[in-house]
Amino acid sequence: MRGKFIVVEGLEGAGKSSVIELIVSLLQGAGHTCQTTREPGGTPMAEAIRECVKQPWEETVAQETELMLMYAARRQLMVNRILPALDAGQWVVGDRHELSSLAYQGGGRQIDADTMQTLSEITLQGFRPDLTLYLDVDPATGLARARGRGELDRIELSGLDFFTRTRERYLALAAADDSIVTVDAMQPMAHVHECITHHLMAFIACP
Amino acid sequence: MRGKFIVVEGLEGAGKSSVIELIVSLLQGAGHTCQTTREPGGTPMAEAIRECVKQPWEETVAQETELMLMYAARRQLMVNRILPALDAGQWVVGDRHELSSLAYQGGGRQIDADTMQTLSEITLQGFRPDLTLYLDVDPATGLARARGRGELDRIELSGLDFFTRTRERYLALAAADDSIVTVDAMQPMAHVHECITHHLMAFIACP
Repeated sequence: MRGKFIVVEGLEGAGKSSVIELIVSLLQGAGHTCQTTREPGGTPMAEAIRECVKQPWEETVAQETELMLMYAARRQLMVNRILPALDAGQWVVGDRHELSSLAYQGGGRQIDADTMQTLSEITLQGFRPDLTLYLDVDPATGLARARGRGELDRIELSGLDFFTRTRERYLALAAADDSIVTVDAMQPMAHVHECITHHLMAFIACP
Repeated sequence: MRGKFIVVEGLEGAGKSSVIELIVSLLQGAGHTCQTTREPGGTPMAEAIRECVKQPWEETVAQETELMLMYAARRQLMVNRILPALDAGQWVVGDRHELSSLAYQGGGRQIDADTMQTLSEITLQGFRPDLTLYLDVDPATGLARARGRGELDRIELSGLDFFTRTRERYLALAAADDSIVTVDAMQPMAHVHECITHHLMAFIACP
């Protein structure tokens, strides 16, 4: 049996890390072997690309550069880890995947839909997650939580307008796609986890 | 007066470096201020991308990853160095530009023309060199010269078939484009330099 690819998405401070831990323990409890990945990153080369894209460069970082680096890292992760794991029957839980590019670069940076679509085709060639859980927080709350964790990277230092556009794009894409579940991540974490548990148990039972 | 962008292209060991030195001295002799660039690279971020793409990774490097990294580095160089220099009236002499991607990734790696075209549009948006000098060598000769210089990088370690396809694509693209001059770089270097000098003097006089 081929494994399934579950992705957790959301703005900084949405609570993705603890949700991923929860999902892994639910999957293991149901007898699945699973791997976790993060984007950009997840292979030595993709982590090097992550370093390139996140560093606070003194030069202008063109938005097309940022976008191509995100997809380059995604290609490495997909070819070297996600597809081999799924083929081996393992489940993969991803901290971000393409929906992040569509929301951050497409929505936040306002890169046109044709460019986004083209890079998606070059990189993913139709590959899609089986289930995406989008943790929705308002940007001010999320960024305050992220700031409490330590220093922000180059992208996290973008203005509030950027994150507001990113969240709007997340919500619109989630509403239009049945494989994306939106979870209100402004609720107390215990409620968020309860909600995730219900969705996951349903997905595990009828994937 | 806007500056001009002159590119030197060719396989490893074609003699690009000494030709670039010659071109710079000819341009300076004609009173032009000039900058040299190399691809991939030429800005701090683009050099970091170069490092990613050239390293001998243990993981599979997907050809789409290699291609997107090449164009990502090119975008940084164009936005941060080439366009500002040309706008300031300086001439720019490039050690490689897009023709390398078209030959190495399009010809050598056999990536389809649609993908190449799309990345070109995203990155360059119609920008093109004013003059390209393609130094033609047969791959065995070029690689022997490059090997004599020291260790080869990940791309230079590709097989002879790869370089044969790359050279064929270089020759075909050069034949179809009036702004690309093919120079026989199998001749003694003094002849190559004489030939380059004639082309350059003509271009400086009537750019």
